Amino acid sequence: MELLHERIRKDGIVKAGNVLKVDSFLNHQIDVKLLNEIGKEFKRIFSDVEITKILTIEASGIAIAAIVAQYFDVPVVFAKKAQSVNIDGSTYSTKIESFTHKRIYDVIVSKKYLSPEDKILVVDDFLANGCAVNGLIDIIKESGATLQGVGIIIEKGFQEGGKHLRGRGIRVESLAIIDSMNDETGELVFR
Amino acid sequence: MELLHERIRKDGIVKAGNVLKVDSFLNHQIDVKLLNEIGKEFKRIFSDVEITKILTIEASGIAIAAIVAQYFDVPVVFAKKAQSVNIDGSTYSTKIESFTHKRIYDVIVSKKYLSPEDKILVVDDFLANGCAVNGLIDIIKESGATLQGVGIIIEKGFQEGGKHLRGRGIRVESLAIIDSMNDETGELVFR
Repeated sequence: MELLHERIRKDGIVKAGNVLKVDSFLNHQIDVKLLNEIGKEFKRIFSDVEITKILTIEASGIAIAAIVAQYFDVPVVFAKKAQSVNIDGSTYSTKIESFTHKRIYDVIVSKKYLSPEDKILVVDDFLANGCAVNGLIDIIKESGATLQGVGIIIEKGFQEGGKHLRGRGIRVESLAIIDSMNDETGELVFR
Repeated sequence: MELLHERIRKDGIVKAGNVLKVDSFLNHQIDVKLLNEIGKEFKRIFSDVEITKILTIEASGIAIAAIVAQYFDVPVVFAKKAQSVNIDGSTYSTKIESFTHKRIYDVIVSKKYLSPEDKILVVDDFLANGCAVNGLIDIIKESGATLQGVGIIIEKGFQEGGKHLRGRGIRVESLAIIDSMNDETGELVFR
């Protein structure tokens, strides 16, 4: 998505440790106009499949999911990072390791909001090692819902998450895939 | 806002301890159509003031802020709950006590995204004791930005937050104010 490439080149900041900061427009300050263009693009890409719900994970996925959902005319469900999982049978849960925060979260979704009839589009801001998306897929499987695809804004193509998901037959559509980045020169290479 | 009152009566669940669960449409599963109606209403109410940015706090404020921002044509900034505040001077920070989670969070906003020129509308899902809103106001003051008003979806009118904020001359507009609720009968009284 050319508009997104341009924006990442203009406002993304490459940091050491393969970190790309996009918090001026995507995950701290949010450019809602850009998200609307992203929503239209996901709708175009996934127009061939039925979607009944959009699933993401707090916090940075939520704004994306809410704006994208307008183009699919469906509700959003966001998975919550729990302090501790309350084992009362009312939630689907999994564990997700955060690349950014270097810790493991318990992540939950209430059983009321995912059912075997649901056809799910997962959306998130980044795909790197795939831990967040894999966790959401675990939850979808547990619920019996159908995963129709995964929509990612920025995929770090030099990490393994996307390759592994596609290798399992999962449809992953990333609007920008970065093949390499250099924190000394700031250079970014898109696929 | 009648549509919101109806929805709270229909899908809100009153629990012991003055808890109102609205996670079927507002803060776990999200009805994006309802949020659009809420966005229109906030735009109508605050049409007399200039707004350059909408400020909220993760996680449940984010979807609201993103949808509402479309009606003001401005970016969103969401305050982040930090594991630990990195005292490098790059963020505004405060401490917020969570009513729901009974703990104190460090909350931060990057200095890059609030400036003295900004005219801020704060939005959030709930106003109860006012801790979250007070924390956001601390951050706005620190930044030198102007607070134009606070837009709340559900105010618990029997708690003190709204009264104290209005007593300080802050414009607080709540789309639903609950004067009392009873977890045994499920009864809700709107102001």
